[in-house]
Amino acid sequence: MSKFKIFEEKLKERKIKARVAVVNATIESAIDAAVEAANKGFAYPILIGKKDIVENLLKNVNFKGEYEIIDSANEKESAKIAVSLVKEGKADVILKGSITTSNFMRPILSKENGIVKAGSLVSHVSVFSLETYHKFLIVTDVAINIAPTLEEKVKIIKNAIELARNLDIKQPKVAVLAAAETVNLKMQSSVDAAIISKMGDRGDFGDAIVEGPMALDLAVSKEACEEKKFHSPVGADADIVVAPEIDAGNVLYKSLTKLAKADLAAILVGTVAPVVLTSRGDTAEIKYWSLVLALMMLKK
Amino acid sequence: MSKFKIFEEKLKERKIKARVAVVNATIESAIDAAVEAANKGFAYPILIGKKDIVENLLKNVNFKGEYEIIDSANEKESAKIAVSLVKEGKADVILKGSITTSNFMRPILSKENGIVKAGSLVSHVSVFSLETYHKFLIVTDVAINIAPTLEEKVKIIKNAIELARNLDIKQPKVAVLAAAETVNLKMQSSVDAAIISKMGDRGDFGDAIVEGPMALDLAVSKEACEEKKFHSPVGADADIVVAPEIDAGNVLYKSLTKLAKADLAAILVGTVAPVVLTSRGDTAEIKYWSLVLALMMLKK
Repeated sequence: MSKFKIFEEKLKERKIKARVAVVNATIESAIDAAVEAANKGFAYPILIGKKDIVENLLKNVNFKGEYEIIDSANEKESAKIAVSLVKEGKADVILKGSITTSNFMRPILSKENGIVKAGSLVSHVSVFSLETYHKFLIVTDVAINIAPTLEEKVKIIKNAIELARNLDIKQPKVAVLAAAETVNLKMQSSVDAAIISKMGDRGDFGDAIVEGPMALDLAVSKEACEEKKFHSPVGADADIVVAPEIDAGNVLYKSLTKLAKADLAAILVGTVAPVVLTSRGDTAEIKYWSLVLALMMLKK
Repeated sequence: MSKFKIFEEKLKERKIKARVAVVNATIESAIDAAVEAANKGFAYPILIGKKDIVENLLKNVNFKGEYEIIDSANEKESAKIAVSLVKEGKADVILKGSITTSNFMRPILSKENGIVKAGSLVSHVSVFSLETYHKFLIVTDVAINIAPTLEEKVKIIKNAIELARNLDIKQPKVAVLAAAETVNLKMQSSVDAAIISKMGDRGDFGDAIVEGPMALDLAVSKEACEEKKFHSPVGADADIVVAPEIDAGNVLYKSLTKLAKADLAAILVGTVAPVVLTSRGDTAEIKYWSLVLALMMLKK
């Protein structure tokens, strides 16, 4: 049984029933994810896309609940409609259907008409469930911000902390990763991590423990902390690990999913409404748990 | 049974019996590793360190074979002696004992008296054995080169290919990692990977297939290659994955050892004699298999 099921319990307690705008809902896995959430009482699907294709797909699923279809000529139009719905207060979450990432993201990030939160930055947050770790491991950013500046890293961390709080992690423990636990002035990741960690000590991240630089082994392994005599509440007990840049984040994401058999849910945060940006080939299951994660971001 | 045992078979076939200089052999795990290799007939240990401490440690191991002890006052002197032995043709491999990495590396890297191969660069190569991958996964560089230039990346790859050939991989398949398989001009890792891959097409790496940019999932997962319609002999069948810089390499190394339960052997290459540079807390087992890997680098 997926460890993510605990989130379904929380959604029930929080009485979440959200309007989910599915952008170009002409793909089975996205329909399946939306319908599963609807059948469990969490979602009211707004299916945007070519009406006949959407209706045809709906015939194959066991769904008797309420939904609506908004007819749309193509993927670009579908994305614009979804963003408008959020801006007009008519949708709470956006779920990516059959659309390229660039077409999907363009209206979301648009400076005039987009839905980026004021003062925020959009970042990707993944939540992993692993046999080899005793809690959820939240990883950011593995997909959106390529080489974040120090200022951007701070925003990325704030986004991840907000997500952690929505998962009822009261005092998130944040590991700011580098290739070592000592500050090496030639290794920018370790320098940035030291600064961010000190900002955490000064309260910049609220009630969270932000520690760095540290390598991943110290974030997740008690044995490694003992060997290296690393003492920190974040040692071997990190809730959030922050990659220094996209290459490190991406390689971690891929090694966890492909080589460590992790279960995964992932969303974009920093937007007015949470966004489920899964990849082309993701299964309905990943899309469903990612949608559940997005729903967890809605006001309690 | 460890998959690395196949290397023991190969060492027997190759009739390897090498002189292993253990730098400051005043730690049990290093002595154990050297003695195990000696008991199997692969090694003649030269134990450098305070004689009384080394002799005391030897009392606890079951070893009746040949060895010698070189008395040495401290770890710095021990490292210098080991490097001299290599230069004088009296040792074939160096194994790190109880010594800090910086003291260990200094005489090795010394411009006047060191043992870096002419025109080469010293890099770290890890070999992982995973339940979730059908072959050894060779990863480089996760420990030495922080932010390698393009020229340094080429040398790092050449070192890894040399190691792969010594493991009897005739035409190594090399994945040059980035966070995506498309060239993104804002993502330096993808740009570098494209250049290196083209160099591979032109024969710069000899009989090897060098492919990039590609993310780790494409290097190791058939499913991911199918989903993304990625066609390359390196897809899902990489022997070597090359990290763009140390943060990505290190996070991969740590996630494989700590979260994907990988077995590990690792050495430094680019030196006149292979060097086993394990960390403080590594087990005798990791040190032993790393020593075996070092022995695999010796002329067949």
